[in-house]
This record gives sequence, C-alpha cells and structure tokens, in this order.
Amino acid sequence: MWRMSADPIEKLSSLFERFPGIGPRQAQRFVQFLLRSSPAIRRELMDGVRELGSSVHQCPECMRYSAGNKGLCAICADNNRDTGLLAVVSSDGDLLALERSHTYRGRYFVLGGLISLASDKINGLRLSELTTSLSQRADAGLQEIILAFPANPEGDATAIRVREELAPIGLIHGFKVSTLGRGLSTGSELEYADPDTLKSALDNRK
Amino acid sequence: MWRMSADPIEKLSSLFERFPGIGPRQAQRFVQFLLRSSPAIRRELMDGVRELGSSVHQCPECMRYSAGNKGLCAICADNNRDTGLLAVVSSDGDLLALERSHTYRGRYFVLGGLISLASDKINGLRLSELTTSLSQRADAGLQEIILAFPANPEGDATAIRVREELAPIGLIHGFKVSTLGRGLSTGSELEYADPDTLKSALDNRK
Amino acid sequence: MWRMSADPIEKLSSLFERFPGIGPRQAQRFVQFLLRSSPAIRRELMDGVRELGSSVHQCPECMRYSAGNKGLCAICADNNRDTGLLAVVSSDGDLLALERSHTYRGRYFVLGGLISLASDKINGLRLSELTTSLSQRADAGLQEIILAFPANPEGDATAIRVREELAPIGLIHGFKVSTLGRGLSTGSELEYADPDTLKSALDNRK
Amino acid sequence: MWRMSADPIEKLSSLFERFPGIGPRQAQRFVQFLLRSSPAIRRELMDGVRELGSSVHQCPECMRYSAGNKGLCAICADNNRDTGLLAVVSSDGDLLALERSHTYRGRYFVLGGLISLASDKINGLRLSELTTSLSQRADAGLQEIILAFPANPEGDATAIRVREELAPIGLIHGFKVSTLGRGLSTGSELEYADPDTLKSALDNRK
Repeated sequence: MWRMSADPIEKLSSLFERFPGIGPRQAQRFVQFLLRSSPAIRRELMDGVRELGSSVHQCPECMRYSAGNKGLCAICADNNRDTGLLAVVSSDGDLLALERSHTYRGRYFVLGGLISLASDKINGLRLSELTTSLSQRADAGLQEIILAFPANPEGDATAIRVREELAPIGLIHGFKVSTLGRGLSTGSELEYADPDTLKSALDNRK
Repeated sequence: MWRMSADPIEKLSSLFERFPGIGPRQAQRFVQFLLRSSPAIRRELMDGVRELGSSVHQCPECMRYSAGNKGLCAICADNNRDTGLLAVVSSDGDLLALERSHTYRGRYFVLGGLISLASDKINGLRLSELTTSLSQRADAGLQEIILAFPANPEGDATAIRVREELAPIGLIHGFKVSTLGRGLSTGSELEYADPDTLKSALDNRK
Repeated sequence: MWRMSADPIEKLSSLFERFPGIGPRQAQRFVQFLLRSSPAIRRELMDGVRELGSSVHQCPECMRYSAGNKGLCAICADNNRDTGLLAVVSSDGDLLALERSHTYRGRYFVLGGLISLASDKINGLRLSELTTSLSQRADAGLQEIILAFPANPEGDATAIRVREELAPIGLIHGFKVSTLGRGLSTGSELEYADPDTLKSALDNRK
Repeated sequence: MWRMSADPIEKLSSLFERFPGIGPRQAQRFVQFLLRSSPAIRRELMDGVRELGSSVHQCPECMRYSAGNKGLCAICADNNRDTGLLAVVSSDGDLLALERSHTYRGRYFVLGGLISLASDKINGLRLSELTTSLSQRADAGLQEIILAFPANPEGDATAIRVREELAPIGLIHGFKVSTLGRGLSTGSELEYADPDTLKSALDNRK
C-alpha cells in the first residue's frame, strides 16, 4: 500500500524547529543546507544520530549522558577527582560549562532541570536519585554539596527545594550545603549593576 | 576487526558546526538536545534526512531543490505564473523570500551563488544553464529578466557578470534585463540612511 | 531677598533629560562631566548657547535654522543650486542628511515635523508657508517638488497630506510632485527584507 | 577690533561632542534641539550651567561634588551613616550607583578615577588625600575600607595600588581592607559565564 507522504522539506524543517534556539527561518536554512549538501554529508548526519542513540548512555552516578564505556562516565571514573565535593547542576550543559572553566575538581550530579516558576512542577527532576545516592557518596568521603544553579529565580527556587530535600539526610551525614557566590561578574561596572548584585557584592566582600 | 570510533558526541557536534550560522556552543546544545530526546525523535531525524536525500530532486527548469514530483517543481509547473518574467536569484532561500512576499508572479532561475569578491570565481554558478534555457523560455514568451540579487557588492558584481553573459542572447530575443529597485527600505529614516541609498532614493523618485 | 533654589545638579540634570535621546542616567553623567570640568568649559558652554540664541536665525525661504547672514541661508543663497527642484523635508536634520550625501543640488523647504498618527494633528507643520512660497518659486523655475520624508507610516501620511495641499496650486503651475524611491537599501539581503520593501524593489526595478 | 567668529552651530556642536558618550551626530541633534527651542529653554540651560559652577562645591570629606551647604555633603553630614565603613569608589557616578541600591550605609571616598592600564599613570587619583584622611577617620571609628571598584582590569590594578598605599597606615590603625565580592551577577547562566566568574562563584560559595 502506498502512503502519501508529507513534503520532506516541511517535515524536516519542522523537526529542526524543535532544536533549542531554532526558529522557522533557520530551520529552513538547515534543510536548504542539507539539500545542497552531498549525499555523503546527509549519510554522515544519519550515521551520527544513529551512533549517538546506540552508543551513548547515561552515567549511573552523575546521570549525565556520555559516550564510550557502559559504566561510569569519564569524570565519575576519574579517581583524581575530589569525592569530598559534589556539584549539583541543572543540566549537562552547565556541567560542561564548569568543566570548561577548569576551576572545579569535584564530582557532579545532574538534576535534569530547574523548578519552573510558572508551574512549580518538579517532576522530571532527579531529586530522589540525588538523595538515594548520598549514603554511598558519604561513604566515599562527601563533605559538601554545592548547588550550582543559575543566578535567576528558577535557580533560586530550585536551590530552596533541593535544600529541603537534603535536610534530613544532610543532618545524618553532616554535609555542608552551599550555593555559588554572587557578586560582580567579570567586566561589571558599578553604574550598570543591579541593586541585588551590588548587595551581594557588598555582602560577599573579602 | 574492531575500529576505535571517535566520541559520537564530538563527531555529531562537529557535524552540526557545519550547519549555517551554528557555532561550537550551539552545536553542543543540539547534541545535548538529541541525547535527552526520546529514541523516536532521533529516529524521526534520521528518517527525515533519508527521505530528503531520496525524494527531493532539483527542478530542471528553475534549478531549485524541491520534493514530490520528479518533473518540474510546483512553481515551474504552475500555468498561472507569468512566463514573461524571469527572476534570477542567488539561492533557493532568496526564491522563497520572494515567494513569501506574495508580490511576484513570474518564473525563477536559481543561479546557485554570487560572485565572491575575494576570489572572483564564478565556478559553481549556473551561468551556462541559464543562457541555455533562454531560447526555450523565449518561445514561452519571456520578455524580461529580473536580476534579483542582494544589494551588496557581491550582488552587484554578479549582476554585472550575468548581464555580460546575457548580452548576446538578449539581443537576439530582445529581452529586457532589469535589477531590483534601490531606495529607502521600509522604516528607513533619512538621517540614518547611507549616501548610496539616498542617491538611489532620489534617482528613483516617482 | 533670598530665594531657596532647588539643587542645581537636579535642575540641570532634568534639563538635559529634555535633550533628544537622553535618559536620566546620561543626563546625570552630563552634569557630573560639567562638575568635573574647568570653569572655562562651563563658560564656553554658556557662551555657545548664548551665541546660538543671538546669532542664529531662520532662513525665510527654506525655514531652516542657520547662522551668519540675516537673509537667506547658505543653500538658498547659492545661485548654483537648481531652482527647478524643491525637496520638502521633515526637519533640519533630514535636510543635513541629504546634504551630507552630496547627491542633491536643488532647493529645500523644511516642513517642521511629520503628521503624528496618534493625534493626526498637523498644527506646527508649515503647510501654508509652503504653498504660499510656491508662486514665487514657480517664477524662479520650479518644476518638481520632491517629498523627501522617511519611509514610515508618519512619513507616508504626511506625504498624502502635503499632496492634497499642493494639488490646487500644483495644477495651476504644472508642478510634478514626487516621493523618494523605495526598494532595497544598501546592504539589504532578500531573505531579511520585509514584503513591502520587496514589493517596492520589484515595482521599481530598472 | 572685530574678530570673525566661527559658526555658532559648529562651535556648540563640537562642545557637545566632548560630553561623555556623545558623537558628532548626536551633538548636532542637541544643537538642532536648542535651535528649535524657545529662548526660555536656552536661558534655563545657561542659568543652570552658571548656577552649577557657582553653587556646587566639592565635599571636603568624600571629595564628591554636591550642591547647597558649603561644608560636608548630605551623606558625610548624616550622623546615621556608619563611620566604621568606608567605601572607596572611582567616581561620583559609582557612589550614586551604590546609593541607588540602598544596600550600603557607610561613608564614601571618591578616588577620582582608575589606574589606566595603557599609561599606568596615577596622577589625578586622590591617593594622598585618602591616606591623609584616615587618621581622623580612625578616630571616628573606621574599621574597614571597602575598595568598591569595577570588576575589570583597571579596577583590579587600582585596588592593588590602593592596598599598597594603605598598607603602612592600615597596619597602624588595624583597618581591614576588602574588595567587592565576585561571582554570578543576577541573571547569570552558568553556560554563558566566563571562567573567572565561575571560579569566583565557586571560591565564594556559601
């Protein structure tokens, strides 16, 4: 039986529109690019997506997606990383941002999102996975949990919620729970800083 | 024999970097998006790219890529379009931009690029395909060829070159060759318009 | 008698806020700049404003403000300018913009504003001064009146209104009334042009 | 003897070009604005500048410019402000920014600039005035000097230099010298934060 298929250009274009930060016009440009490309490029893209799906898996410890070994990801498997520190981040992207800065040598846990202020819903966040993992991490020497969320209302609301979740088990193990420091970010002028940032900069002077 | 494959995340990420307007960071975000997505989404993307490759073909008349029938594209097959007008555009994207404006009812020819001022190279431009097609178009009633290129140095250089190419055959058939009008674009203030635009606006007053 | 004066910083700051494009913060920076400046700079500013007020006058022909001779401004007094062309502009700034482009050699008339779409009020516009001046300009050889307004709704509404005003006298003298050409402005890409601009570019092709 | 004066429009325009953040085009718009304005507005501006020059003076304690009383400025005269804290700022503008944030209740000292990295020159900075004032401030209870400079290389270089200057007298009186806290400023996303800011945010976590 023959099925009338939708226009493949339209179909692929609306798929690209689901990509983060991509609007209809750029989605169309992507399709135009693939149309003009050689079959080899399209083949490479299909293969790349297939490989991604088959070889990548979620690290059972930090929950981020990585490729290669089926067990722990490269960071969680690295014995040189400090097991005393655990940075809880919102997304794989934020984890990678911290890695790029070469300033953090502890472990990670990817929460999988932030609390949305609109819906206040927390489903999807790996809160129970986080708390469950803490006993084992305590045995491995965990001392401080750093809530490394963005400096915005969603990040703040998520930090409050995570602190509540961690309170009982934190008491048992004596974890310290901290949040990232606020203040002037590099390049900030006092004249253009908002009052909250100036307040943090004053409070956190040193 | 087993081949050590590169990290699929890196591989796919550098592939997305080749997409128009995409830098390393957004390429990584695309991969992260696909990692978080369900297998169904990745399957849809692979299928979409495969279908694009198999079902899309180049219209033999306007040279743009479209999907569906193997013959003429929807525009070239539309008998209600004016065969007296031929807009020569740089890219499929510019063709689509003119279509979106709903102001042009003639035919198209996609040149496949512009002359690069750096290299002045014209290989890749479908100049011979354009001139070859003109006898047949003359029989179909073609009277005016509109060079619809962007208002920048590359567009201007391409228009000069195409006019040269069209001169002999244009003389035979008596085609008019025109370029898009220059002047104030919507929203322009005189104070912020460049001298060239003001000159065009004065020259083309009416 | 002693008068309690308001804070001179506040007073001057709120005066600068009336300057075109200046908000409270930049107004304050201006005052800080004058505070830090030497008395000579402040003196220069006062003298400059005083001189402006005393020596500048409005040209009785084009109605723009200029300095120097009490009679015609430099442009209106220039016998090498084409008396056959009259550009009607909204403001002195638009007149200066056309002069900077070195593409116009006719005469000017400054209307003194545009019709506001919100209020549709035309008081303040020198419509009667314009029509009154036309008999004399006709004697001097005027043939075409160019409505050189910005390419926005206010400019368009003003052009319609001015055409209505000019219709009776225009018929008598046989003036042509034109508006600035619309189309692609320098640097425009087709993909990012709005439909109106593309329509004008097609309509005004040549 | 009669001196041919320059065009008052040009003269005033080039004066406005010296204003902070003002280029030739906006300077011209300012002059056009004053030309169109009533004589009363021009008079107000002249009076405002004159008053500024005559009534404003520099506070002998914080060195900022203010108006009204000949003695201390309103902040330095306010007995409710904490004499234990002294914020050293670069400019009057930065002082006002801290005041607008309503987060600081101590005293101020305006240094009058930052060290320029290009020239490394410090002339113009009120370094000796600052150190000289500290004995008296010590008697008034000063305990901490906050170097409230912008988070950029000039601000950092200035902080280093001021710390050197303060070292001898600081030791005598036991002052603490602090700088504003660095970290995520309000609204910061981890993904777009620079490595220095992430490092500060981690170092200053709490």
